[in-house]
Amino acid sequence: MRGAVLYGPRDLRFEERETPTIIKPADAIIRISATCVCGSDLWPYRGISPVARPTPMGHEYCGIVEEIGNAVTSVKPGQFVIGSFFASDNTCPHCQVGYQTSCQQREFVSTAQAPILRVPLADGTLVATPDVPSEDLIPSLLTLSDVMGTGWFAASAANVKPGSTVAVVGDGAVGLLGVLSARQMGAGRIIAMSRHESRQKVAREFGATDIVAERGDDAVARIKDLTSGIGADAVLECVGTQESMMQAIRSTRPGGFIGYVGVPHGVELDGEQLFYTHVHLHGGPAPVRRFLPKLIDLVWNGKINPGKVFDLTLPLDQVAEGYRAMDERRAIKTLLRP
Amino acid sequence: MRGAVLYGPRDLRFEERETPTIIKPADAIIRISATCVCGSDLWPYRGISPVARPTPMGHEYCGIVEEIGNAVTSVKPGQFVIGSFFASDNTCPHCQVGYQTSCQQREFVSTAQAPILRVPLADGTLVATPDVPSEDLIPSLLTLSDVMGTGWFAASAANVKPGSTVAVVGDGAVGLLGVLSARQMGAGRIIAMSRHESRQKVAREFGATDIVAERGDDAVARIKDLTSGIGADAVLECVGTQESMMQAIRSTRPGGFIGYVGVPHGVELDGEQLFYTHVHLHGGPAPVRRFLPKLIDLVWNGKINPGKVFDLTLPLDQVAEGYRAMDERRAIKTLLRP
Repeated sequence: MRGAVLYGPRDLRFEERETPTIIKPADAIIRISATCVCGSDLWPYRGISPVARPTPMGHEYCGIVEEIGNAVTSVKPGQFVIGSFFASDNTCPHCQVGYQTSCQQREFVSTAQAPILRVPLADGTLVATPDVPSEDLIPSLLTLSDVMGTGWFAASAANVKPGSTVAVVGDGAVGLLGVLSARQMGAGRIIAMSRHESRQKVAREFGATDIVAERGDDAVARIKDLTSGIGADAVLECVGTQESMMQAIRSTRPGGFIGYVGVPHGVELDGEQLFYTHVHLHGGPAPVRRFLPKLIDLVWNGKINPGKVFDLTLPLDQVAEGYRAMDERRAIKTLLRP
Repeated sequence: MRGAVLYGPRDLRFEERETPTIIKPADAIIRISATCVCGSDLWPYRGISPVARPTPMGHEYCGIVEEIGNAVTSVKPGQFVIGSFFASDNTCPHCQVGYQTSCQQREFVSTAQAPILRVPLADGTLVATPDVPSEDLIPSLLTLSDVMGTGWFAASAANVKPGSTVAVVGDGAVGLLGVLSARQMGAGRIIAMSRHESRQKVAREFGATDIVAERGDDAVARIKDLTSGIGADAVLECVGTQESMMQAIRSTRPGGFIGYVGVPHGVELDGEQLFYTHVHLHGGPAPVRRFLPKLIDLVWNGKINPGKVFDLTLPLDQVAEGYRAMDERRAIKTLLRP
């Protein structure tokens, strides 16, 4: 088969790779229905995270089970399944409290931009949909593998409640789906921070009530203006830079909550400064497995349509153009069909 | 009157100061029944926090109201009152959600190591006891002004619940009262980290079930040993150094909670490292005003005896010896009687 391999900064190739097979009894092999490019794929693509050797790419996936190992009992060939970017056993103490991305046996699923994928710990990782979905549902179901679950975790970690005033830092796909999540959780007011008109439009469709186009100090001042000088109850940090993290912290009211899901790059927090803000801070790699059953239900019943974040769809063999379009901000998120 | 004034590192003097009077209509004047030396007083005493000019000291207090300003309605002369180290109006949006130490009008009360004290925003700051207390209750009531409320906030911020496994970093008075607080909140297991036998003894009296004498990596390894490799559900950080903060973070299970109340000195948190720990982080200057009514009730009814942390009582004019004894770790905490 052919799949995506990153050789170095902006050098992504679609090339021959070995077709995965069952290695361990807990494995499943999936024929990918759709995969996509993640904002976090852009860190190594841009050379910000170093790439030591040619690296297969892709960690968002859904598709049809082709084969299962001897130990697998919860999914079977022919089923349509979605899994997290981290495989997890879903039985260890960390999984049991809902932190499957800290599973004691976790394995990163890193070869999903390909037609065939091996998923370890299939029983713990994969969740089947009620039936094989119609084509139009596939983009939304695909988002549950990472980006939608990550936006949901950001809102959950930020303690969004009915009536909350929420601010979202970051207008990438995760930030936009953080808006959608906050709306689902009943937020009273959702302030999306975005400078890009096309993204502002999606944010409004997903439920944003206000848009703040400023950044840094000016953005914080605008949030304070919009909240009678108090700050937001809940802030979703969906970028991962020093600037975005400080923007999140300074936009939060004392006693408020920050859910941070942007993978931090070069972020340093000053302990004393954080102390006096009185914020709650929680985040990390989103345990999307925790949310899969609920989110599948919401998509299946037409309650949410997170697939709207895909504004570019390409055949898998054009994956390099998919990266380029996101890198150059021509696309919010690229869907790839094998 | 005479009161404590810090001139520089280890240069604390008991000297003539102006006797405070009502300045604003919201003020009250209190005759101090007891005050004490705080662990945080040692930062400037040791020269770690610089002292630019001779600085009156003391922020923990209880006593009898002598005089009130025209605007004060909730306390009256003759009542025994306790207040927080930050005066607060108790009506602003931050106070209303329980963060009185972020009050929009907050003022630090910084001259309490003296016989007479002016308390601003008296209606919002002071809480009267049901009656003038007997002498034996005064040490415990005094702790509610800061140290007990701070231990309680640490446990509350760390989400201690019935059955929780709790670890406490720091065996100063705050850490010890964090142990007591965790016990009151129903913790199933309380691991106190302490190398000092006298403090281990108090920790056990307050409810610690296990003692860990190691520090740094070894301490983290011991916590993991004691928790089947999982880590603690709730960790109370009651020191404020880089080592203690990292010890707290690394002792917490993924998805667990850290309540940090040690004023951070030189603490820097690596964003990426924090991200992958999956911990919840909350803390800051404890909003002890939030807890005063409940904690007064617990002391008044003999349910808790936090005054046990005072292992040295001196007349106020020996305040310099009170600092020295704590600096040299001869005393956990010094009570001062004018």
